[in-house]
Amino acid sequence: MSDVIGIDVGGTFIKAGRVDTKGNIVKELNEIPTEADQGPKHVISQIIRAVKELSPKEALPVGIGTPGIISLDRSTVKYPPNLPGWEIIDLGKEIASAVNTQVVVDNDANCAALGEAIFGAGKNIPSFVLATLGTGVGGGIIIDGKVFRGETGGAGEIGHSTIDYNGPQCNCGSFGCVETYIGRAYFVRRVAHKLETRKDSLIHELLKDGGELTPEIISRAANKGDAFAYEELREAGYYLGVGLANVMGLFDIHTAILGGGIAQAGEPLFEGVRRAIVQFSQPPIASSFALHHAALGNNAGILGAAALVL
Amino acid sequence: MSDVIGIDVGGTFIKAGRVDTKGNIVKELNEIPTEADQGPKHVISQIIRAVKELSPKEALPVGIGTPGIISLDRSTVKYPPNLPGWEIIDLGKEIASAVNTQVVVDNDANCAALGEAIFGAGKNIPSFVLATLGTGVGGGIIIDGKVFRGETGGAGEIGHSTIDYNGPQCNCGSFGCVETYIGRAYFVRRVAHKLETRKDSLIHELLKDGGELTPEIISRAANKGDAFAYEELREAGYYLGVGLANVMGLFDIHTAILGGGIAQAGEPLFEGVRRAIVQFSQPPIASSFALHHAALGNNAGILGAAALVL
Repeated sequence: MSDVIGIDVGGTFIKAGRVDTKGNIVKELNEIPTEADQGPKHVISQIIRAVKELSPKEALPVGIGTPGIISLDRSTVKYPPNLPGWEIIDLGKEIASAVNTQVVVDNDANCAALGEAIFGAGKNIPSFVLATLGTGVGGGIIIDGKVFRGETGGAGEIGHSTIDYNGPQCNCGSFGCVETYIGRAYFVRRVAHKLETRKDSLIHELLKDGGELTPEIISRAANKGDAFAYEELREAGYYLGVGLANVMGLFDIHTAILGGGIAQAGEPLFEGVRRAIVQFSQPPIASSFALHHAALGNNAGILGAAALVL
Repeated sequence: MSDVIGIDVGGTFIKAGRVDTKGNIVKELNEIPTEADQGPKHVISQIIRAVKELSPKEALPVGIGTPGIISLDRSTVKYPPNLPGWEIIDLGKEIASAVNTQVVVDNDANCAALGEAIFGAGKNIPSFVLATLGTGVGGGIIIDGKVFRGETGGAGEIGHSTIDYNGPQCNCGSFGCVETYIGRAYFVRRVAHKLETRKDSLIHELLKDGGELTPEIISRAANKGDAFAYEELREAGYYLGVGLANVMGLFDIHTAILGGGIAQAGEPLFEGVRRAIVQFSQPPIASSFALHHAALGNNAGILGAAALVL
């Protein structure tokens, strides 16, 4: 089999690489600005340019990960958040007709899950749930090595499952979504609020030169022994774990994989997740689940998209 | 195709019937006492007796629904609640060797879902979730006409998914399970407690001859215009709806079917369910979901079990 091209369309940057069948990125373009504010036509031309640069002679198969819900035929992108003016666009067809090759599109969280299944932490695990912790909380579910997509392609959105019907309202309109507890902005806001009364926390020291409170700062403080920061990460992990316990129970899946920024915090977060899974799962899962770090890191976007056409 | 035999093993009664391919029960045995306290051997002999009585000449295929988690090969029953002393028993093998025919076993809620898919309210609906409201809250998920069973056969237990991580502890050990809000005992206890201060409720009138508070009484009061009873049923439906919204979102399923005792309450319950699904779902589901009554009623057990071998 030949190399393929993987493209990850983010709100700010497009990442693109040529990937061999073993999951090595053999050529990578420097981050291309998405320039989403210039509308879909411009973004599409950016993607086409990247494809042509990565496969100037032959037309290699192209996998593309984007935000939004993708049609079951894995071609049409619907209302992607962070890509203004998109509404409904048959991205697969647009690219395929411009470069005359096979194009497969899927949701970025589904791509990340598939990438982990083929190249990463899920390599020998038939079924698992991946949660990607970033600005939002993405989710992808792999069953017997395939992405579980549901009736219309919208399945697996663990970030918008509810863990408290009385919980805070989410950007999505619903209440008590996992994302309202561990999405980046919500998490930072909660910690910032409590920090006002925790004069003893190392975080103050780390911010004394005027930096901004971020999950990375909280994580760094926890690693340096700050009990407050540790507990905040553990609590965030606990909320995520309640959501994971629901997914794992409903799907009868015994493995969860965590990726994305806040997952880098490691042990305090994972400790909270494990505690919640034990507490909120039935015995068959509580006694035998596995929890892993995602393995693909910064390459998850390109490799996950490439996995669509491998 | 020939007739088949459907057997529903409950904690109190075994229901058994001979079913034709159109879902008519052509012969039915009067309820056979399970006599579960006499142990698994006795229960198995009760089942064998029923099979022989329903197919004295030929050995018809047998489908059996039981509580508990059933192995992926649909033969072995694991730790069924309400069947003392069972632990792990290969029920399929026991029955097949005694009557020399094909035997398929599945969880009672999965059977109910399959029965609705083949003969009932889910007839032309490829994918749906069924919630059965009884002593406990059972769940079965149908995807493309098949029961979704997960890695070990335990999938779809909506009754033990969490809608409030701070909620009441459930019999299962977890917290805030849907069952702790709408399981029969929990529901009746909550209403009984509030009833103490609701002297105006019709329920007092309905209980004045010394009857016991039951979901049926609450439902009857609601139908007679009692605002308190109506609101309690609507609230119970709301809790169920939060759990259904989670399942429907995670699986990207757009149809829910409600069966079992409390579902008979009808509109007040359904109103609460609908309200919650709208409130806790993403737009694609909130704007286009369907909610149906289960259609098989008292025959669900026999027809669902029969569906396993049809």
